Amino acid sequence: MKALVYDGPGRRSWTDHADPGITAPTDAIVRIDAVTICGTDLHILKGDVPTVDRGRVLGHEAVGTIVEAGSAVTTVKPGDRVLVSCISACGRCEYCRVAAYGQCLGGGGWILGHRIDGVQAEFARIPFADTSTYVLPAGVSDESALMLADIMPTSFEVGVRNGTVKPGDTVAIVGAGPIGLAAITSAQLFSPSSIIVVDKEPARLDAAKSFGADVLVQPGEAATAVAEATGGLGADVVIEAVGIPETFELCTELVRPGGHVANVGVHGAPATLHLEDLWIRNVTITTGLVDTSSTPMLLRMLAAGRLDPSRFITHRFGLDEMDEAYDVFAHPQDSNALKVALFRS
Amino acid sequence: MKALVYDGPGRRSWTDHADPGITAPTDAIVRIDAVTICGTDLHILKGDVPTVDRGRVLGHEAVGTIVEAGSAVTTVKPGDRVLVSCISACGRCEYCRVAAYGQCLGGGGWILGHRIDGVQAEFARIPFADTSTYVLPAGVSDESALMLADIMPTSFEVGVRNGTVKPGDTVAIVGAGPIGLAAITSAQLFSPSSIIVVDKEPARLDAAKSFGADVLVQPGEAATAVAEATGGLGADVVIEAVGIPETFELCTELVRPGGHVANVGVHGAPATLHLEDLWIRNVTITTGLVDTSSTPMLLRMLAAGRLDPSRFITHRFGLDEMDEAYDVFAHPQDSNALKVALFRS
Amino acid sequence: MKALVYDGPGRRSWTDHADPGITAPTDAIVRIDAVTICGTDLHILKGDVPTVDRGRVLGHEAVGTIVEAGSAVTTVKPGDRVLVSCISACGRCEYCRVAAYGQCLGGGGWILGHRIDGVQAEFARIPFADTSTYVLPAGVSDESALMLADIMPTSFEVGVRNGTVKPGDTVAIVGAGPIGLAAITSAQLFSPSSIIVVDKEPARLDAAKSFGADVLVQPGEAATAVAEATGGLGADVVIEAVGIPETFELCTELVRPGGHVANVGVHGAPATLHLEDLWIRNVTITTGLVDTSSTPMLLRMLAAGRLDPSRFITHRFGLDEMDEAYDVFAHPQDSNALKVALFRS
Amino acid sequence: MKALVYDGPGRRSWTDHADPGITAPTDAIVRIDAVTICGTDLHILKGDVPTVDRGRVLGHEAVGTIVEAGSAVTTVKPGDRVLVSCISACGRCEYCRVAAYGQCLGGGGWILGHRIDGVQAEFARIPFADTSTYVLPAGVSDESALMLADIMPTSFEVGVRNGTVKPGDTVAIVGAGPIGLAAITSAQLFSPSSIIVVDKEPARLDAAKSFGADVLVQPGEAATAVAEATGGLGADVVIEAVGIPETFELCTELVRPGGHVANVGVHGAPATLHLEDLWIRNVTITTGLVDTSSTPMLLRMLAAGRLDPSRFITHRFGLDEMDEAYDVFAHPQDSNALKVALFRS
Repeated sequence: MKALVYDGPGRRSWTDHADPGITAPTDAIVRIDAVTICGTDLHILKGDVPTVDRGRVLGHEAVGTIVEAGSAVTTVKPGDRVLVSCISACGRCEYCRVAAYGQCLGGGGWILGHRIDGVQAEFARIPFADTSTYVLPAGVSDESALMLADIMPTSFEVGVRNGTVKPGDTVAIVGAGPIGLAAITSAQLFSPSSIIVVDKEPARLDAAKSFGADVLVQPGEAATAVAEATGGLGADVVIEAVGIPETFELCTELVRPGGHVANVGVHGAPATLHLEDLWIRNVTITTGLVDTSSTPMLLRMLAAGRLDPSRFITHRFGLDEMDEAYDVFAHPQDSNALKVALFRS
Repeated sequence: MKALVYDGPGRRSWTDHADPGITAPTDAIVRIDAVTICGTDLHILKGDVPTVDRGRVLGHEAVGTIVEAGSAVTTVKPGDRVLVSCISACGRCEYCRVAAYGQCLGGGGWILGHRIDGVQAEFARIPFADTSTYVLPAGVSDESALMLADIMPTSFEVGVRNGTVKPGDTVAIVGAGPIGLAAITSAQLFSPSSIIVVDKEPARLDAAKSFGADVLVQPGEAATAVAEATGGLGADVVIEAVGIPETFELCTELVRPGGHVANVGVHGAPATLHLEDLWIRNVTITTGLVDTSSTPMLLRMLAAGRLDPSRFITHRFGLDEMDEAYDVFAHPQDSNALKVALFRS
Repeated sequence: MKALVYDGPGRRSWTDHADPGITAPTDAIVRIDAVTICGTDLHILKGDVPTVDRGRVLGHEAVGTIVEAGSAVTTVKPGDRVLVSCISACGRCEYCRVAAYGQCLGGGGWILGHRIDGVQAEFARIPFADTSTYVLPAGVSDESALMLADIMPTSFEVGVRNGTVKPGDTVAIVGAGPIGLAAITSAQLFSPSSIIVVDKEPARLDAAKSFGADVLVQPGEAATAVAEATGGLGADVVIEAVGIPETFELCTELVRPGGHVANVGVHGAPATLHLEDLWIRNVTITTGLVDTSSTPMLLRMLAAGRLDPSRFITHRFGLDEMDEAYDVFAHPQDSNALKVALFRS
Repeated sequence: MKALVYDGPGRRSWTDHADPGITAPTDAIVRIDAVTICGTDLHILKGDVPTVDRGRVLGHEAVGTIVEAGSAVTTVKPGDRVLVSCISACGRCEYCRVAAYGQCLGGGGWILGHRIDGVQAEFARIPFADTSTYVLPAGVSDESALMLADIMPTSFEVGVRNGTVKPGDTVAIVGAGPIGLAAITSAQLFSPSSIIVVDKEPARLDAAKSFGADVLVQPGEAATAVAEATGGLGADVVIEAVGIPETFELCTELVRPGGHVANVGVHGAPATLHLEDLWIRNVTITTGLVDTSSTPMLLRMLAAGRLDPSRFITHRFGLDEMDEAYDVFAHPQDSNALKVALFRS
């Protein structure tokens, strides 16, 4: 088969690769029907994720069709259309048993396109298929479901749920890339009274507006805008969706006493935590990798027509246009790409 | 009357001071029967709290008797024995209405011995008396109740409740001063399976042992001890009870994925938050000033004989031995003082 | 002044009544600008509420203007436009201190138009004005705010919040009168995937549809409709909005294992609880009088343009058309009235 | 092998039965080392549980040793000492994925000794072994662990956790049989200020006292005792541990406004729910079959020496004294039996 193979920093190719096969009774083999690229894949290609070996097939977000299932797989069968989650779950460890699949101790967690071969390929082996794939409800399109592999549960769980967004809240989202935009959509499920989005790129603020943000500001104006919207108190919930120290520190300035800062960004460096101000302010700060515990709910919303995440997809390709898709996704300032989708032809 | 008056950094005196009087219909005047000194009072005396003016009567933890009540006070009356909470609550603002009294926007919060005259005096004016004092149940001693003015609700709310201690948890407490010891007592209310206390002073670790801690370690051994107790995972809850960057950062190393770090310490400097490690670990970090929303519950526990906080009191004085009491409390390395109590003679 | 006075079962009149005056320092006098009638007022008129004495001014839902404030009132002042809540809160008792104002032990709770004179009058005395009235944000109309005096917080708190409606849920609402319709609006704040409304009156089902319900069924078809929508499992949340044994019992049949039944209806007779079926099904059943703890949030939503509760008002009158308004509201089968509003001319 | 076989109402025998074998890759075969009898087994023998077929091996509470494991079992292996839970969990269905194993839709739930052969036998097949057995920590005795198969998690989850017992609460427990006594132990984990136990049998009240109950009353005195202990308000949490309409209805009388009634009893008949009183009182009523989601926590508590559930065992037998053990357990009024335990010799 063909697959996108990582060959060390800066090197990737859509090339021939051995077909995957069942190696444990809980495995399934999935034919990939739709796949997307994550910002994390670009990090891997920069060499930022040393746990990824050369020769690894990348990719952890896909929709496909079961073509073979191990002897212990009971909930999916060949022919089933499934969402392949970015998180695999052994279903047995102490973390999986409290639906904290992202922290799986039994061989799951984020393994696809990381510790084992991923889904930017024609076929993929999915371990723990019963607890790591989700049968698509009738009427749900591949491309809508594809956005539930990572970006929607990440923004929902790590941003909105950890941040405890509630009706009437003022929510500030710092960063209007794909995850920040998804956080707008996720936050709206809880009916905040105002969503303030902070980004330095005007194009991203425009996108945020089209996703329903109420107030759009540059970082330097954020504190003033939040104060104006909240009588000087600060935002109820602040979501970090960038991943650098400056944006995290801005979040801790924007939050009201008693409020929540939910970090979604992937960080490579420490930040300064101003405890000399924060110790007295009853602030809650959360971090997290997605657990995908919200995936079944998001699929129900999709089936009910309550979500339209296909709007995140700005560019569509055939599966063997993988190289071009990577180029487009890697240069959003030129392409205005949010998410790209590749489909089996 | 006599009162302990702050006269600028390094200067305090037990001296004559004008008697307090009712200034608002929600005020009450309390005769002080028992009072204690807080580490915060020592900070004020060092000049670390610039919001305290010269001439201020210090003190925010007392038990006393109502001697006069304003026209709008309905729940306490002259003759009632009351706990005077370290936190005053207007009872009307948006924070008070969700029991977040520490963040009161209506003139309360931590005001006693800070923004208005406090309780290290023979008499004190207590604003918002209905929502800032608590009638003592029959049979509760002054000195036991006195520990409910600050130390017990602070350790319970900001440490144990924010940290969500649950039955079976492994709890690590960094710092075995009075607040750390109170956190042991508070944590025990939720039946953790193990309490690990970290401090560099052997005498404090001995005290922690006598309060019921299971494992006692120096800071350098803390990571190993927590790993041994938890199969390498980390503690479910880590409580910071010191207030310096090093101890806070240690807390974020000791916590397990999915765990909680509850900061109780009063910080004067920023800490480093290692988001490059923490972003993926589903950690929750909380800060907070006490709200004293747990005070009625703690009084019920006291009345039921379920708490014995008088064990925190190592030294007892008459009210006019205030100077000596300060000296003893300010030098715990010599005096082995935890809390000192002063009583009206 | 004029007021609507109850004169025993079946007897009411819009008649002269002594002007109210301040009787406690926490009182305020409010000029009534807009007022509505509640189903409970009709119950009182039938003689079903024996705690209402003859001569009582009825009414507990109003918007008005402060004309006088007692000496201890600090958060509202003459000239302020305020919402008068159906629930008064002393702000000091153990229930008020956890925002359970409906259960106030200090003289509040549902007292207006019940234990003291109410708001269907030109003026009204409002006890505990600081914690029982809410200043209207700029731009909020009297008639929209009026719906926040009772019907919106009741449906939100007792129906949706007690029932823990979450994104993706299937919600069944039994009863499509004003409270049932308000429960649709309140439930939508949490983005359920489907709302099923049950009523025997086709006109009410039509109203439910216009409020956004997804499925409309007669009681006899409810079990089948819920089963179809949920793969046979049952609804996540079922809200009782009628108040008779049959509808309550239907709710317990419609709920899925692990689901919630939130009773909002006012009941006059016991129901049968089929514990022989329910003991094993992990069902949670809640009851409740509204606390109005959600009122500030609902006002924020109103100010932000996120709610339009004026749609509940089907008929508008002048204040001295009180008799006609009662007649219209008491006969919804003829008038199609949901809520009626009366305005000062 | 030998097993306790149900042969229709009133008929049981400890007799020869075919050895169990692996039938699915997720099965394990367990040699039974210790087993107990549940009140539910007596119900089965009375013919009250028609879903139990003749020829069924009874029993759902055991400790044993893995002797064979299916090809997909990864977390236990031959030689491991395990707790066999009363609840089996497929680990894959929507209920198992939120740790609601008792409601498992994938073939689990309460199946042992009910829908498939149980554990009152020399060997047993345990389906879904990875998610239905728990390896015993070192140092935990068979008989202590045995009490974690059903009685301890049931009282903890369905009584105390559903009832949300908190520090300082007044807890009333109606029924002082084994489950009621276990509820005392479970409630103590959250440090209530008072536990009031209601039973009509003096011997049971004596047992309750020895387990740490504070107040012991006959049913007719319960309302008065609770009122005295709570200033007339009612209990914060009431736990029903009998299973008849009268005791359930008593629970709803004893609970305070805003309190919780947690039903643990197994009911065979409907109860009357006095909604005419309860609608306004903000009461929460819960029912439930145990999920055993607390089992890992309880095992940690056991390993830490924080629980001593072996005190529930009043009589000990060899495995082939099964008949005698049933006789003793079935007649507690003669034998004073709480739980009986049978051990492999």
